Amino acid sequence: MRRLAAVAVALLAAAWVLPLPFPAATAADIIAAPTGVTIPKGYRNWQVVAPSQRDDKDEIRVILGNNIAMRALRAKRLPFPDGAILAKLAWKRVKSAEFDNTFVPGEPQRIEFMEKNAKKYAATGGWGFGRFVNGSPADGKEHGTCWPCHEANVKGNDFVFTRYAR
Amino acid sequence: MRRLAAVAVALLAAAWVLPLPFPAATAADIIAAPTGVTIPKGYRNWQVVAPSQRDDKDEIRVILGNNIAMRALRAKRLPFPDGAILAKLAWKRVKSAEFDNTFVPGEPQRIEFMEKNAKKYAATGGWGFGRFVNGSPADGKEHGTCWPCHEANVKGNDFVFTRYAR
Repeated sequence: MRRLAAVAVALLAAAWVLPLPFPAATAADIIAAPTGVTIPKGYRNWQVVAPSQRDDKDEIRVILGNNIAMRALRAKRLPFPDGAILAKLAWKRVKSAEFDNTFVPGEPQRIEFMEKNAKKYAATGGWGFGRFVNGSPADGKEHGTCWPCHEANVKGNDFVFTRYAR
Repeated sequence: MRRLAAVAVALLAAAWVLPLPFPAATAADIIAAPTGVTIPKGYRNWQVVAPSQRDDKDEIRVILGNNIAMRALRAKRLPFPDGAILAKLAWKRVKSAEFDNTFVPGEPQRIEFMEKNAKKYAATGGWGFGRFVNGSPADGKEHGTCWPCHEANVKGNDFVFTRYAR
């Protein structure tokens, strides 16, 4: 029992130090895109794949990955395994009022997810795509634009645009 | 012993699911800036405060925070507590070859840290600043430019430029 108590104390200590675990999307997630992709719990706490910026939409973004995706990226292992999820968070690009020539996130524009499930999403390279604006999924027509572009441009990178920024 | 074994299994399971713990900088960190600030272990795995972009240097950045910093940011709690560390990772901004009008990280330019220790860094608002290029710290003169700019521009935000991007 002493050892059990010691283990319990260690567990409690670990719970304090460790980041909270954020599991991949489960059936408990409620909001679903027409593709079946949901907003994964805790995605805002995922690690960074890379930032990006887009001129025509005047947006600044950051692409995050869940643990499965990050492990694959760091090991440079393609294709991504089932369960890998990438998240893109896009904000309007706004000029900083406090530092010249610098741009920072303004209003959130949308969040997007790519979820790997080779069987479920076999028709779209094993990837399910989900786009959400203000917490609501975009419509089926809009979702139909994801795959053709990924297929045409980044077939050699398992259909993923973003590379891990070292 | 059965319960101990069960706890051991749970611990192993947790180790698989949980992100690895990355403690704040310790004496074990070797590379130190003239300010005493070191490169914290595992900073690349920290969570995102926000991305940013700078025109004059043609850079794209992401600002990360350790657990102590992220907790304070999410609770909108200022000033940051001792132990909070913010990291800025800056890359050259490069045009994507695969998607029009989009810019992605190119060559890494530098990593920078702000580490809160109200007593140790009392002369600079409680913040220690560290700048590292290719793993080597910048010189003392260069470090002397950090504090005056933070002091002059973001006194009302505990001398931190970056806001948490929601």
